Amino acid sequence: MILSGSLPNIPWEEKPEGCRDVVWRYSKNPIIQRDAIKRSNSIFNSAVVPFKDGFAGVFRCDDKRREMLLHAGFSKDGINWIIDEEPIRFKYEDEEIGKFEYGYDPRVCFIEDRYYVTWCNGYHGPTIGIAYTFDFKTFYQLENAFLPYNRNGVLFPRKINGKYAMLSRPSDTGHTKFGDIFYSESPDLIYWGKHRHVMAPRGWWQSTKIGAGPVPIETEEGWLLFYHGVLTSCNGYVYSFGAALLDIDEPWKVKYRTEPYLLSPQKLYECVGDVPNVVFPCAALHDKDSGRIAIYYGCADTVTGVCFAQADELINFIKDNSKL
Amino acid sequence: MILSGSLPNIPWEEKPEGCRDVVWRYSKNPIIQRDAIKRSNSIFNSAVVPFKDGFAGVFRCDDKRREMLLHAGFSKDGINWIIDEEPIRFKYEDEEIGKFEYGYDPRVCFIEDRYYVTWCNGYHGPTIGIAYTFDFKTFYQLENAFLPYNRNGVLFPRKINGKYAMLSRPSDTGHTKFGDIFYSESPDLIYWGKHRHVMAPRGWWQSTKIGAGPVPIETEEGWLLFYHGVLTSCNGYVYSFGAALLDIDEPWKVKYRTEPYLLSPQKLYECVGDVPNVVFPCAALHDKDSGRIAIYYGCADTVTGVCFAQADELINFIKDNSKL
Amino acid sequence: MILSGSLPNIPWEEKPEGCRDVVWRYSKNPIIQRDAIKRSNSIFNSAVVPFKDGFAGVFRCDDKRREMLLHAGFSKDGINWIIDEEPIRFKYEDEEIGKFEYGYDPRVCFIEDRYYVTWCNGYHGPTIGIAYTFDFKTFYQLENAFLPYNRNGVLFPRKINGKYAMLSRPSDTGHTKFGDIFYSESPDLIYWGKHRHVMAPRGWWQSTKIGAGPVPIETEEGWLLFYHGVLTSCNGYVYSFGAALLDIDEPWKVKYRTEPYLLSPQKLYECVGDVPNVVFPCAALHDKDSGRIAIYYGCADTVTGVCFAQADELINFIKDNSKL
Amino acid sequence: MILSGSLPNIPWEEKPEGCRDVVWRYSKNPIIQRDAIKRSNSIFNSAVVPFKDGFAGVFRCDDKRREMLLHAGFSKDGINWIIDEEPIRFKYEDEEIGKFEYGYDPRVCFIEDRYYVTWCNGYHGPTIGIAYTFDFKTFYQLENAFLPYNRNGVLFPRKINGKYAMLSRPSDTGHTKFGDIFYSESPDLIYWGKHRHVMAPRGWWQSTKIGAGPVPIETEEGWLLFYHGVLTSCNGYVYSFGAALLDIDEPWKVKYRTEPYLLSPQKLYECVGDVPNVVFPCAALHDKDSGRIAIYYGCADTVTGVCFAQADELINFIKDNSKL
Amino acid sequence: MILSGSLPNIPWEEKPEGCRDVVWRYSKNPIIQRDAIKRSNSIFNSAVVPFKDGFAGVFRCDDKRREMLLHAGFSKDGINWIIDEEPIRFKYEDEEIGKFEYGYDPRVCFIEDRYYVTWCNGYHGPTIGIAYTFDFKTFYQLENAFLPYNRNGVLFPRKINGKYAMLSRPSDTGHTKFGDIFYSESPDLIYWGKHRHVMAPRGWWQSTKIGAGPVPIETEEGWLLFYHGVLTSCNGYVYSFGAALLDIDEPWKVKYRTEPYLLSPQKLYECVGDVPNVVFPCAALHDKDSGRIAIYYGCADTVTGVCFAQADELINFIKDNSKL
Amino acid sequence: MILSGSLPNIPWEEKPEGCRDVVWRYSKNPIIQRDAIKRSNSIFNSAVVPFKDGFAGVFRCDDKRREMLLHAGFSKDGINWIIDEEPIRFKYEDEEIGKFEYGYDPRVCFIEDRYYVTWCNGYHGPTIGIAYTFDFKTFYQLENAFLPYNRNGVLFPRKINGKYAMLSRPSDTGHTKFGDIFYSESPDLIYWGKHRHVMAPRGWWQSTKIGAGPVPIETEEGWLLFYHGVLTSCNGYVYSFGAALLDIDEPWKVKYRTEPYLLSPQKLYECVGDVPNVVFPCAALHDKDSGRIAIYYGCADTVTGVCFAQADELINFIKDNSKL
Repeated sequence: MILSGSLPNIPWEEKPEGCRDVVWRYSKNPIIQRDAIKRSNSIFNSAVVPFKDGFAGVFRCDDKRREMLLHAGFSKDGINWIIDEEPIRFKYEDEEIGKFEYGYDPRVCFIEDRYYVTWCNGYHGPTIGIAYTFDFKTFYQLENAFLPYNRNGVLFPRKINGKYAMLSRPSDTGHTKFGDIFYSESPDLIYWGKHRHVMAPRGWWQSTKIGAGPVPIETEEGWLLFYHGVLTSCNGYVYSFGAALLDIDEPWKVKYRTEPYLLSPQKLYECVGDVPNVVFPCAALHDKDSGRIAIYYGCADTVTGVCFAQADELINFIKDNSKL
Repeated sequence: MILSGSLPNIPWEEKPEGCRDVVWRYSKNPIIQRDAIKRSNSIFNSAVVPFKDGFAGVFRCDDKRREMLLHAGFSKDGINWIIDEEPIRFKYEDEEIGKFEYGYDPRVCFIEDRYYVTWCNGYHGPTIGIAYTFDFKTFYQLENAFLPYNRNGVLFPRKINGKYAMLSRPSDTGHTKFGDIFYSESPDLIYWGKHRHVMAPRGWWQSTKIGAGPVPIETEEGWLLFYHGVLTSCNGYVYSFGAALLDIDEPWKVKYRTEPYLLSPQKLYECVGDVPNVVFPCAALHDKDSGRIAIYYGCADTVTGVCFAQADELINFIKDNSKL
Repeated sequence: MILSGSLPNIPWEEKPEGCRDVVWRYSKNPIIQRDAIKRSNSIFNSAVVPFKDGFAGVFRCDDKRREMLLHAGFSKDGINWIIDEEPIRFKYEDEEIGKFEYGYDPRVCFIEDRYYVTWCNGYHGPTIGIAYTFDFKTFYQLENAFLPYNRNGVLFPRKINGKYAMLSRPSDTGHTKFGDIFYSESPDLIYWGKHRHVMAPRGWWQSTKIGAGPVPIETEEGWLLFYHGVLTSCNGYVYSFGAALLDIDEPWKVKYRTEPYLLSPQKLYECVGDVPNVVFPCAALHDKDSGRIAIYYGCADTVTGVCFAQADELINFIKDNSKL
Repeated sequence: MILSGSLPNIPWEEKPEGCRDVVWRYSKNPIIQRDAIKRSNSIFNSAVVPFKDGFAGVFRCDDKRREMLLHAGFSKDGINWIIDEEPIRFKYEDEEIGKFEYGYDPRVCFIEDRYYVTWCNGYHGPTIGIAYTFDFKTFYQLENAFLPYNRNGVLFPRKINGKYAMLSRPSDTGHTKFGDIFYSESPDLIYWGKHRHVMAPRGWWQSTKIGAGPVPIETEEGWLLFYHGVLTSCNGYVYSFGAALLDIDEPWKVKYRTEPYLLSPQKLYECVGDVPNVVFPCAALHDKDSGRIAIYYGCADTVTGVCFAQADELINFIKDNSKL
Repeated sequence: MILSGSLPNIPWEEKPEGCRDVVWRYSKNPIIQRDAIKRSNSIFNSAVVPFKDGFAGVFRCDDKRREMLLHAGFSKDGINWIIDEEPIRFKYEDEEIGKFEYGYDPRVCFIEDRYYVTWCNGYHGPTIGIAYTFDFKTFYQLENAFLPYNRNGVLFPRKINGKYAMLSRPSDTGHTKFGDIFYSESPDLIYWGKHRHVMAPRGWWQSTKIGAGPVPIETEEGWLLFYHGVLTSCNGYVYSFGAALLDIDEPWKVKYRTEPYLLSPQKLYECVGDVPNVVFPCAALHDKDSGRIAIYYGCADTVTGVCFAQADELINFIKDNSKL
Repeated sequence: MILSGSLPNIPWEEKPEGCRDVVWRYSKNPIIQRDAIKRSNSIFNSAVVPFKDGFAGVFRCDDKRREMLLHAGFSKDGINWIIDEEPIRFKYEDEEIGKFEYGYDPRVCFIEDRYYVTWCNGYHGPTIGIAYTFDFKTFYQLENAFLPYNRNGVLFPRKINGKYAMLSRPSDTGHTKFGDIFYSESPDLIYWGKHRHVMAPRGWWQSTKIGAGPVPIETEEGWLLFYHGVLTSCNGYVYSFGAALLDIDEPWKVKYRTEPYLLSPQKLYECVGDVPNVVFPCAALHDKDSGRIAIYYGCADTVTGVCFAQADELINFIKDNSKL
């Protein structure tokens, strides 16, 4: 059902017996501890991709100043990671863009010949930064995609209708209390336009705001998009995640969308940490041959976990539990 | 000292040695896990009563959409529960009332010949829904008791001065920052009036708002009312509970009221969950012969626990630690 | 088109030439100055009715402590008023109800043989007080209609389906940011129930909250209800008013509702005062023979004005400019 | 000093004797009353340009629903206006963009061969709508320039570095409490990018947020930009306006910026109205030969006024009273 | 009844006929227009004292940057003022204290041999600045009296119990929503201690916060203190003022306090301006021989007015209308 | 490097192997459980000092009313504590000062011949209470140091420039959203003045507010001050702590200040409790001979922990990781 991407070495663990859910956690979570590198306070919302015969990724590492930084990392098996002690220093042409305020919540997307990184980039407020790399060592920063204030910019893994395509979630300057997902396109990754509304918050676990998670996966049923949703309890935000299927050619059209969440914060490492009650997916590996999907997600804004799904079962679940 | 209700099979566990409190937790808490039924995200603020030779109850089961629903359940021993996989579907005469928006925080009260359920019912905002059942299979919904916005509607187990009587806590539309307990009466459970103020928030653990918990228990010293109180810390609400003794004939008159709480969130299952730091009592079984009381309470808005008290000791404590 | 009530001496002034509106102001507004009685800071949201061969009313007079009080008043022509220097002291049976905290925004409704006053009555928060009088000298207070928190309780001028009927707007404790109109009924003016939702805020001038104004007027097209609506600008609330036509037998069903306002604060005495930008109608005299309607309204929470409408023209306007 | 645009028939009134300010009001303000057209509640933030041998404009007319609409209008002398009774109905290709939610605060900018209108356009939140017209009768709507949430989009009157250029002020969904001016460019008015920060709020009258006003005027000293600034008093927002001079080739670089305001709400028609204490400039006519400038501005979100300045005196004032 | 201070040339206007109040406005208010000096946006909360054969004062002049500055001024008759175009530049010993951030709401108090100025002084937040002058030309700044955050610091006109004495109102950093009056004493005007609570807000016009106004006047009945009070309407703060009588030797003990206000914003120049609905007294001249009192007050944070009272009548009114 | 204070019996545990931090936790934390005394709900922000041949301290014990009280306690080894069951009852001269509202977050400082206690003392709002004791049995209360609203008052252990010296953090009435550290001095502990600003919040972990922790320790590099900092996440406040070095003679001058935190809430007993995610230091023992430092800190506002540092290593870290 997944249309592209063989990844026989995808990290994987079978669903535990008796488990009634379509998404299940890795039993040895968290796979990345908060202090995996020397200066880190926490390592969580992070993006991994297949790279050479293993995996590479860009990681949100908040240091002990609680400054938010991006680090590259590498892994043979997708579970055990070696993260660079030094943060990424982007190369740039225009200092106005290149001077780094802060960067967080990266996504990595391979398009054509290179890996694009998008992240929440500080430029007089949060907006979407874009850079590319071939080797996860040297990163070239482009123009910010949008005006502030924006977060959760996620590229599609190929051009659509001849244009680059991005999902994003316009925001405000702080702990935003609203948030819809929009679709935008670009001929050149510099100028963006034709903005279309995709989804708004709706009901219960996704009632405050929503945001795209990993790079969408192309399937026979449409683009498979995992997205986080936020509920405001009397004691704060609760971040869960669900999934949607977007039209292949007009991805701003939602075909299916889970009414229940797929995963919500329930384990101690998801409920206790710098921000309690957060599961926040930023990357998903997939293998079209086996239908296996491995979702990487931040836990309590503190550590990184991984969970798994089987594509067929998942897509059926989305369709059977959909409410638009 | 308790005036009515023999219940020799009341769930019970002796107070642990060295325990200095008058309310103590069941050692195997939580008794109902969050995923006790297939679709549930959490099962917590719930109401149980003696039923036939065992127990029955109405349970708040939030499903994985995080929608709030009411389910019936049954138990032989009051500890191990079988909860219906399907939510209660109320029968009704007027669709305006019967169309279900949401329901949560039920209480169950046996009066004369049937079991009445009251709950927070969505009707253009939260108000108090009323229904009755004879068998916990078929439930007949009546008119909502009050205009919105209201929560924590709790019936008395017999008519007072010839009228049905209810405690409730007027609210607003959201995570209300205020809340007093009021008393209202009705000739027919349809029309309500003669509203009287009972108690306001007051000091520390009960400084933000208070609300009636289980159905009051008739004792020689007055109606024994467990009620929750909320403190607002810099990191959110903390729900504890205490108790009051209300005048038997004029229950809006408070005779005694605990200055300290009886139970506050201290165990991991009370402190960590969808809403951290919540203990919220909704039902209390009692046996007049032994003086045993078993209080059922929601923990962290996620699971259900039970705790115990001895009526004599408890009532003495309330009187000795009272501040009106 | 108006079905009841001849009032040949209704105050009246013809529509000014060139005026394109269906409601027009009295040219000598305000008719009651803020200092019309000795101790008053302001006299505004007030209710008048035909009485003997002239008119009587109940007036909101805030004194120079800014305490809110109710005063009776009398007029020969409905324009020039003599207001009692002393506030109304209600007679009551139960001191719990009778001890006066504060009272404001009265309405007066003649039913069968007496004049009923409803107002926002302080009882551990704002709720709806009810009293009756035969002579506007002695007032007998009944039970509060509802639990707090409520405002803008307005009786219908006759029983409907054999029951007394009231519109009200559930609120919170302060400068409430929400507010729908509900319908409730009572067999005896003591116990109230069968609460039905009537209208929610909707769009622009009526987007924050709405509330019933004068006692509804029975017409061939349904109950004619003037109601205020509130818009929240970046500099505070703006109170305008519009009108609706409610079903005669099931008044919780809205047949027509003005999309534009009928009157908004535009004159200096409506824009400048203790609360800038308020027009707030509380009473409407009508004469079925001529179709004349005189609407009394508070201006900037400071003074009282009157405006006029012609029933036929008005009802056509409501129907032609309706959006439910 | 002004580099382009002869307009001998510019509206004008000499500075009153004794006036010590560089911007002075027209003595017959407001020039457009709130009820200038039949359905209007208010006509204020509006944009005018020279057109044929007179003037044309696009006007914000809030109707009596308080819905915000755009109307075209025409004038012989720039002072007396005839405004279309019917709002502008934009022609469009894609219904997703063309379905009109609301439109307000228009600007009009002549570039090359046509008049471009930009305005705050409702598309799942406020963003910047763009349309063009040749005759102020037929308007062709293009794609929205940016993702929501944005307001105060103002085009430059010619391409800069070969690209269309726009100032805008990213916002949130409501009465935004922040706001900086940014610069963006586009090859085609569809795709926008290369976003640069221009100015942030700073001190006193401009401490809460700022936003571009009229289309910038090209002068020898740089682009002359009038912009509004907002101060938050304990009783709400106060909108004043000042001016800046932007670099001709890199307009995101501010050369001078007035530390004092040029005009603040002081006249009754600026202080009293639907939103008290607002002066909000949206258009400025200029005549390069005489150096005369006529600034059109909304007053109290209710009526439209005009004020005047002499270019030389003004530019000197900006330079002498500048603080970056 | 006033114990000190002959001032035969006190500004005065008899009470208008028919006026029922004990405080009445000067008929030619405002006496100081907003643009009385060249750079001023507004001149309002200001302090005047007898000086030589006329009067001098310190004036809050916000300039057209809306920066808050203090200016000295002089008058022959107390009505017509000449205000220095240049703001006061304080002389100081320690630059840490002397570097001027902002200054507003001054009071002037003659003690022994010099005039002390106290004002709200910016030092990492608002606190109470102190300076003295002999001639209103050279001002010597001392240490700030208190830690931030404080406003409305008012000295007593003589030592009490051998110590200097000051009233003040602790605040927060912004448009503070609370505020009580406290009393503090000092041996040397440098070190302050023995802080005592004087009065809290209470009811209606003075329900949000209160603050001392002019320097207290010594009378046989105690220190006569005018103080402002703030009510929070749904459209912002309303500033009125009343008066209290404080014990002569223990001025933190309130003997009488007006339940009604003495003056509230009712005139257009008090209701319309930069901050609508403000009357704010900062100075009161008095003549013990005639009992005349002239109170200077800021109007709508824009202009300066004066009002009058007769000491005997006023003190009787305070005693007759007191509620502690 | 530490200049005074030999304490060979200082509690101590060597740094665990592999630990890369300069501050490490005691392995048996928490050392004081929440129910260490009979009536306590929690025992946390507490101050200990060497006393005789062991240790004494003043402890914040919130009881089960959640009232905040201060208790004395004693220990032989600084780890195992016996806390008085009865709260401290201060002796006082003036009942106005002595009547106890509440007390929390104590510090204890030995100066010359006695132990001074400072704490957050309720006097019409939180302010800084001062008392002294010789024996931790009898405590003599002095005047409050400052006007409300203040918290975290910390004395220096000797006079500076001949004056007593105190750090404090001006606040508001509630869960304050701002907070800088100031320095004040006093000739007599009664009158306080010469207030100087020390540090403001700055960046990330210390971006909301900061407050002095233990009594400063005199070192060759200046006064070593541990201070807490607060970050506001979308789910509430996170309290961490860092350190600064203040100039010996002008302690309001900061020489160094840690950019990273020294300790943040990461252990379950720091993350889960009445207030999640709090580490809050109030006392630090030190031994000049060994350079050992033992820091006592509140955990989650529930229990008390201790952590350790080596003075040389710590001071080097502060200097190497400083950003002013």
